[in-house]
Amino acid sequence: MQVVPPALERLIQSFAKLPGIGKKTATRLALHVLRRPPGMAQELSQALAEIHASIQLCSSCFAFSESDPCVICGDARRSAELVCVVEQSSDLMAIEKTGIYRGQYHILHGVLSPIDGIGPNEIKINELLARAGNGVVKEILIATSSTVPGEATASYLIDKLKNSPVKVTRLAYGIPMGMDIKYADKHTLAKAIEGRDIAL
Amino acid sequence: MQVVPPALERLIQSFAKLPGIGKKTATRLALHVLRRPPGMAQELSQALAEIHASIQLCSSCFAFSESDPCVICGDARRSAELVCVVEQSSDLMAIEKTGIYRGQYHILHGVLSPIDGIGPNEIKINELLARAGNGVVKEILIATSSTVPGEATASYLIDKLKNSPVKVTRLAYGIPMGMDIKYADKHTLAKAIEGRDIAL
Repeated sequence: MQVVPPALERLIQSFAKLPGIGKKTATRLALHVLRRPPGMAQELSQALAEIHASIQLCSSCFAFSESDPCVICGDARRSAELVCVVEQSSDLMAIEKTGIYRGQYHILHGVLSPIDGIGPNEIKINELLARAGNGVVKEILIATSSTVPGEATASYLIDKLKNSPVKVTRLAYGIPMGMDIKYADKHTLAKAIEGRDIAL
Repeated sequence: MQVVPPALERLIQSFAKLPGIGKKTATRLALHVLRRPPGMAQELSQALAEIHASIQLCSSCFAFSESDPCVICGDARRSAELVCVVEQSSDLMAIEKTGIYRGQYHILHGVLSPIDGIGPNEIKINELLARAGNGVVKEILIATSSTVPGEATASYLIDKLKNSPVKVTRLAYGIPMGMDIKYADKHTLAKAIEGRDIAL
């Protein structure tokens, strides 16, 4: 017998399709929504209904945006000479939070991962190479993650850009701010020693 | 500058109102929904839009239901003589999963918690007491959680029902099935010893 009402079951199933949300959490979320006044459900419903219609990709940097060009590419105060290459929109958000980056971005929307069938044509690499040759861009800062696929993507980009006129840079690797040296892993510590700065 | 498009920010904010979902998880969920084809967002949006209109409380047991009486109260094969009192709908679901309970339920929709201003009138206690006196119910099985407010609610119910003609029972407490005795906490072990069964 179906003791969970069908409408509730549908909501549980829909929540359970979100990443990291299992059946138990989905049930908890659905019951929470049901116990609250309808406004909460309506608000989330509305936000979901509008999301795809409202948001497109910026045709220059491929960030999610309501306008094209996006607010960053369209901001004349930001340098179009410096382009930071990131894997995902969430990386862009993290970099923007620092408040110190004043260039533009290029979102790859993924990393090279041959095992998953993701090659250079599946992510926005050709668009980046075209941008690198547009005569405006002077420096490309590669900010892919320090993971195996992130590093592989960075290497591929460096190789493809080696004959282009742009300067190619990477994020500095080292000890995180506030971290006790004895807790740093040996790879990070090795990177920090190799990349040591002159202090005096 | 607002680098997160407003429609995306609204979706993040709406997700972040769900219990146990912070700003970072909400951002991850919203970006996931955005990266997927629109069908996923539409499905969840639809399920949320319909939930409050489709679901009401059963007027007998106060379970969430699309019909009144609910499928359990309306099922003639289930005994109306035995009523299991639970705190929330999720407890009902857990008990139904065992497949062995054939009585009805009564959902309190909360526990007594004077510190939060929740007294007997804020949860479905009066309705339970009325049900206990309806001449049909013969046994009330109290299945509130084994927490301080759950126990306080159980004690309150037992006190209120002491002059009623119904039999009042509680769930058995003891060692969970499959648990090694040496890992059982002392309170559970004490309960298991007190409530020991005759084996031979």
